[in-house]
Amino acid sequence: MRPQINAERLLKRLRDLGEIGALPGGGVCRLALSEEDRAGRDQLVRWMEELGLAVSIDAIGNIWGIRPGTGDGPPVMIGSHIDTVATGGLYDGALGVMAGLEVVAALNDAGARTAHPLAVAAFTNEEGARFAPDMMGSGVHQGALDLSRMLAVQGIDGATLGEELARIGYAGDIPPKSLTPAAFLELHIEQGPVLERDGVRIGAVTGVQGISWTEFTISGQSNHAGTTPMDLRRDAGLAAARIAVEARAIASDFGPPQVATVGSVNFEPGLVNVVPERAVITVDLRNTDDERLKEAEARLHAAAHSFAEEEGCEITARSLARFAPVAFDETVVARIEGAAMARQLTVRRMPSGAGHDAQMFAPNCPTAMIFVPSKDGLSHNIAEHTEPAELIAGAEILLDVALDLLGEAQ
Amino acid sequence: MRPQINAERLLKRLRDLGEIGALPGGGVCRLALSEEDRAGRDQLVRWMEELGLAVSIDAIGNIWGIRPGTGDGPPVMIGSHIDTVATGGLYDGALGVMAGLEVVAALNDAGARTAHPLAVAAFTNEEGARFAPDMMGSGVHQGALDLSRMLAVQGIDGATLGEELARIGYAGDIPPKSLTPAAFLELHIEQGPVLERDGVRIGAVTGVQGISWTEFTISGQSNHAGTTPMDLRRDAGLAAARIAVEARAIASDFGPPQVATVGSVNFEPGLVNVVPERAVITVDLRNTDDERLKEAEARLHAAAHSFAEEEGCEITARSLARFAPVAFDETVVARIEGAAMARQLTVRRMPSGAGHDAQMFAPNCPTAMIFVPSKDGLSHNIAEHTEPAELIAGAEILLDVALDLLGEAQ
Repeated sequence: MRPQINAERLLKRLRDLGEIGALPGGGVCRLALSEEDRAGRDQLVRWMEELGLAVSIDAIGNIWGIRPGTGDGPPVMIGSHIDTVATGGLYDGALGVMAGLEVVAALNDAGARTAHPLAVAAFTNEEGARFAPDMMGSGVHQGALDLSRMLAVQGIDGATLGEELARIGYAGDIPPKSLTPAAFLELHIEQGPVLERDGVRIGAVTGVQGISWTEFTISGQSNHAGTTPMDLRRDAGLAAARIAVEARAIASDFGPPQVATVGSVNFEPGLVNVVPERAVITVDLRNTDDERLKEAEARLHAAAHSFAEEEGCEITARSLARFAPVAFDETVVARIEGAAMARQLTVRRMPSGAGHDAQMFAPNCPTAMIFVPSKDGLSHNIAEHTEPAELIAGAEILLDVALDLLGEAQ
Repeated sequence: MRPQINAERLLKRLRDLGEIGALPGGGVCRLALSEEDRAGRDQLVRWMEELGLAVSIDAIGNIWGIRPGTGDGPPVMIGSHIDTVATGGLYDGALGVMAGLEVVAALNDAGARTAHPLAVAAFTNEEGARFAPDMMGSGVHQGALDLSRMLAVQGIDGATLGEELARIGYAGDIPPKSLTPAAFLELHIEQGPVLERDGVRIGAVTGVQGISWTEFTISGQSNHAGTTPMDLRRDAGLAAARIAVEARAIASDFGPPQVATVGSVNFEPGLVNVVPERAVITVDLRNTDDERLKEAEARLHAAAHSFAEEEGCEITARSLARFAPVAFDETVVARIEGAAMARQLTVRRMPSGAGHDAQMFAPNCPTAMIFVPSKDGLSHNIAEHTEPAELIAGAEILLDVALDLLGEAQ
């Protein structure tokens, strides 16, 4: 008997987990290492044990549940996270972990034995909403982040991550990188509007966009809005506004997948009748191609400097974040496409605009992600929603690809 | 003997007044109806009495010092204010009142008798820094503002204007409009950079720019900066940035005296990686010609609406202030020009970009203002400065024009 996803069982686990930290108006709050996160972790460990998995906790608090294989190869990993932002939804992260459990349950139901072991993981602090940076548990596990530095990180509430891990009982002793993966899979909601808009049910994620965050600080001269002729002004605000307009022009001229966002701007003194003497503006540029991203950055910086110069202002630029694009494994992406086509589900290759735990594994093993549609593209929002049929479809593709990668018992 | 300005006496009064409310790093703080304003007023009243003026206080707290004329005509008025912003300079307002006292002193020294009486006035709360609106004392006196409503105004510190007037002993009983002016003169620092830049010593002020303040609120949709394709965005911040760029274009296309300023902008949620769902932006437009100002407003509103529409956003506009331009009296302006030329001082006709007490009198009697240069155009700033020679030159022109208007004793 071929293993099958049990839709009701998967949906019930998602509902049950969603009740832990549930908010009165809908959605959920399970900030990393909070009491709610502890309760969610405890429930996850109980489920893993009920499924017969060997549960272990590593030094950054990642939870691992392992189903043995018949061979002596490394495990195929399925992972995501169960922490949320302060006003999160039910599926961001949780879907990937609950679907991992459902894959195990389906294997168990079928009495299936696989060549590789299967490891289901829930990574610590993917969101970065309480402790920075995000993708912390997967980053430490894969060696991209330093364990001792991360344990010393202070949260927005002043708590120390290592102490909070110990307090909630999830300071394990397994060192980073102790589990070498054969492959890594992550099922996640898209968190964007593309699949829904285009009526596509499965996203075969080809990689994660590179991200470049720049903060420009422009210094001009504060002046009276009535008495200062235009040609004597050094208007920091105007230079900032021109940068915002240029950022959009860059995205238009480069075309997809280039995106550009100005999310934050501040003028000083910020009065109706005073020419701003200082403006601070952020620009978020993303592209899947690092060379194109560098071109976009170069054009933005050149334009910003010339806008400032034309206005007689000084300008400084500070990089707030810079991540190179991550490419997923072509073979695994093709398997996702193939699995979707075999089930007659529309599928599209697409990049991820957001960061995910999977990207930490991509440099070290064959890795890819499966996306399912997000209603109205909403995420990090209590209104986040994905239809049950889409959740199930995603889990079925995850099962199919996992079965391929796990291999039949010898 | 023709009356003469005594430079030392004028400069000493300016220095003495500047010590009342002096700030440790320079400049002065005499917020309206504060203890420092009370002390300044007490000093002013003592000086008026020493000069033999008949002192009276009206119902909004304006201080009047009257030197009798030989005829029975109404008084020629010289007035300005002694209140300041929280970090003000020594000359904004104070120069006009101290120069008025010096004109009286010069007349007294010369034993001059004039046909019209001369009234020197210090108006309550010109700055509007503690109580809104500004130009309050002159506005109430001339009937543009309602006395009882102004007495009920609450300040930024919660104090009520009428109670503060009584507390500092300046709640007089003379009703508004009780003194009908024959003419009104005000000497003031330019508060802008034009005279200094062009090496002109005297500004013959032809009127006050019309002012139009609009606040635009743009509503779009908050979205993830990475996962939302550009063509699905409804970016309130971009529409706001385009409005700021358009405001500058309007000023450029219209040319002087049109000015346009975006002093304040706010994005929500204001995060680097979130498309703004809400942006609030203010635009300050000024022109001396009301028809041109209306054209500028119309172009701004049309552009703002089309930017919002192109971005799929909603937009609302709220007028925060709208004052029509004020034209001063051609005859008095010409007398200022003539007086400057007679003293071989360079002079230029110019509008005022800022509001002044004089504009409240302009509809009701022949009115004009004299400007002297502001170093670097700075005002409302402890670094505000005008050279002593310029202060004296302005007072001499004030004296000359006042003598013309006061007429010789019959």
